[in-house]
Amino acid sequence: MKIPSSTTVRLEAFSDGVLAIAITLLVLDLKVPHTEQGHLLHALWRQWPSYAAFFISFIVIGIMWVSHHSMFERIATVDRRLLFLNLLLLLGIAFLPFPTSLLAQYIREGGQNASISAAIYSATMCLIGVVFFFMWVHLEHRPHLLVEGITVEQIRRAETRGLVGPIVYGLTIGIAFISPWACFVVYGLIAIYFARGPSSRAATPTLDADG
Amino acid sequence: MKIPSSTTVRLEAFSDGVLAIAITLLVLDLKVPHTEQGHLLHALWRQWPSYAAFFISFIVIGIMWVSHHSMFERIATVDRRLLFLNLLLLLGIAFLPFPTSLLAQYIREGGQNASISAAIYSATMCLIGVVFFFMWVHLEHRPHLLVEGITVEQIRRAETRGLVGPIVYGLTIGIAFISPWACFVVYGLIAIYFARGPSSRAATPTLDADG
Amino acid sequence: MKIPSSTTVRLEAFSDGVLAIAITLLVLDLKVPHTEQGHLLHALWRQWPSYAAFFISFIVIGIMWVSHHSMFERIATVDRRLLFLNLLLLLGIAFLPFPTSLLAQYIREGGQNASISAAIYSATMCLIGVVFFFMWVHLEHRPHLLVEGITVEQIRRAETRGLVGPIVYGLTIGIAFISPWACFVVYGLIAIYFARGPSSRAATPTLDADG
Amino acid sequence: MKIPSSTTVRLEAFSDGVLAIAITLLVLDLKVPHTEQGHLLHALWRQWPSYAAFFISFIVIGIMWVSHHSMFERIATVDRRLLFLNLLLLLGIAFLPFPTSLLAQYIREGGQNASISAAIYSATMCLIGVVFFFMWVHLEHRPHLLVEGITVEQIRRAETRGLVGPIVYGLTIGIAFISPWACFVVYGLIAIYFARGPSSRAATPTLDADG
Repeated sequence: MKIPSSTTVRLEAFSDGVLAIAITLLVLDLKVPHTEQGHLLHALWRQWPSYAAFFISFIVIGIMWVSHHSMFERIATVDRRLLFLNLLLLLGIAFLPFPTSLLAQYIREGGQNASISAAIYSATMCLIGVVFFFMWVHLEHRPHLLVEGITVEQIRRAETRGLVGPIVYGLTIGIAFISPWACFVVYGLIAIYFARGPSSRAATPTLDADG
Repeated sequence: MKIPSSTTVRLEAFSDGVLAIAITLLVLDLKVPHTEQGHLLHALWRQWPSYAAFFISFIVIGIMWVSHHSMFERIATVDRRLLFLNLLLLLGIAFLPFPTSLLAQYIREGGQNASISAAIYSATMCLIGVVFFFMWVHLEHRPHLLVEGITVEQIRRAETRGLVGPIVYGLTIGIAFISPWACFVVYGLIAIYFARGPSSRAATPTLDADG
Repeated sequence: MKIPSSTTVRLEAFSDGVLAIAITLLVLDLKVPHTEQGHLLHALWRQWPSYAAFFISFIVIGIMWVSHHSMFERIATVDRRLLFLNLLLLLGIAFLPFPTSLLAQYIREGGQNASISAAIYSATMCLIGVVFFFMWVHLEHRPHLLVEGITVEQIRRAETRGLVGPIVYGLTIGIAFISPWACFVVYGLIAIYFARGPSSRAATPTLDADG
Repeated sequence: MKIPSSTTVRLEAFSDGVLAIAITLLVLDLKVPHTEQGHLLHALWRQWPSYAAFFISFIVIGIMWVSHHSMFERIATVDRRLLFLNLLLLLGIAFLPFPTSLLAQYIREGGQNASISAAIYSATMCLIGVVFFFMWVHLEHRPHLLVEGITVEQIRRAETRGLVGPIVYGLTIGIAFISPWACFVVYGLIAIYFARGPSSRAATPTLDADG
């Protein structure tokens, strides 16, 4: 049973706020197309990379919320470094609408611009994953921050699992220069993979009633 | 009496955040018209579909908040699938400003564009209703997630009532191609109907002091 | 001592969310001017109605937050009608960035457009005040919704004081057609008046440590 | 141990909301550049003042959140004046995206426009620091607002430390007219300085587990 300190309560509330806003701001990137009578469906259809980018970033931020919540369920108190690591994490997440917008704009154009936008999206995701990883490392070395009953062993396992994200996203930085579309597919697969479960379930073992 | 787990608390806070932001972002679609001296009132008047769309989507998201709150009053713990169903629900709600904007832009133009924009608005609302419905179905089959004292029978009734939304909005997809204005009227009627009460009261029987 | 029900907790959280977002979105109306080298200060100065409108609406929403908080400190449980009155209140507040923007744009132009924009701002504020008033009336007639120890007499006094807002703002609708600048001054005076205290203190008698 | 009154709880929640929204809205100022095939990286590179401004304001608001949280950990109840000082503080923070945007736009241009935009950014930061300072002064003279065990001596120390911000930012108003780039560097140094620790740790001595 976790008895939250007032710091973790406000930190979680602030983080939830940033995550909720970042996830909702994504819609501002969907623009109503200006089009002639009878061509709306076609004009909307041509924007499909925007919807795909909206969808992927939405699911990705949603999964980050689940991971963040799962991490803080194991934290009893917060020290200054964790506070700033969390701020860096929020920086990455609040920044995400920009590479999302970049990707939506340039993926269809192909060529170098598409590759660069996909590489920037991948790099952002990779860096967010790295910050998550360092938060786990920090917790591993400061067991006094953990909720009673959580072992260093459990944190170490979460830490190892936390490497999957940055590694796969890191690889897509390279893939972006071979085929940005392949990146798009990998992003979708990662999102589906995390949303569907086994491994992401493993990443959040303490979630209630997750029989 | 519900003793909320830390997961339902944070899930409700996160959902409240997304709902509050989506409902408040709607105003960004109301643009100050650029007009000559003495023509402001006329210019504002010509934007009336924007105000109507703002009003309808605002009431609709407000009602969704009531329904969401009412559902989570009966939930004691959350499992992974419910977490992702809720994320899908938030995806629909966070997306809503886009079809609202589309509808406001094209309804007055008439013709096929008006029909398509109304159909897309209807389809979004219908899909949100479908996700709500599946959340009830999920709860029906997992009574261990429910607050003590809530019976499967009660959930089943909420589930049946939850079909009204997607069915009516589903019908307006078709109506959009006959008359998009008729859709507009139906949206208004649904909003008034839910806001006024009897059936929506029935949909939230556990609301406090609802004598 | 108030023991909040889960409904008032979530209603307050949702309302706080909408108020916090509406108050923060106001900044989006402040545009960076495009100007030649050496003319930035002048270009910024010419935008002063935007800053004034930002400032007034910010203070106004801040005061509304104080009033809203003060009202809900006296409410133990919420019924359906109060829920929808509160939704109407949030509708008005979430709409406020639009008339703020309108006012900032047209006040300097003078003439009929300035009058109309000031009248619309006044009317919005007046309507918000009216909804607040009806919330007090609703509470007066349903004492079972109140926190123990709060008397109908206290509610009636708050109700009477609650008339000041809609009446003064109602008068400025007329003043707008004589001199929109006078409205601007009255808005500022009302804001200063409420912020300074006596009467607004009276409006929130239960605020802690308000000796 | 702090037993928060319902007023401090809602005030903290409202403040967290405004801070979370202001910090997340900063991303809206990062615009996707429109560029020809193969020039995206160069076009993005040319926007670097926008990223630097985003980064600095993000860290600054993050540090403000830490300071705000640290202050309210010592406050047991809130009086009317503190409520309005806090509202002024939020006004400054919610306004911050505008000078951030101004700075990002004009710093590269050099000349007087760059100086003015840097001076405005500095002045905003300075004023926010002044409000923070007056909040400490207010608390010093009203010990009955403090959590049991917090001495006036501790508040006085926080007050003295709270002078560093407004003084340094005040100095950068002048520096802006010698070299706006120097300001940029000072902002970065202040951010790094606060983020790294000693002095900002001193500013938040009650943060949990800050061994």
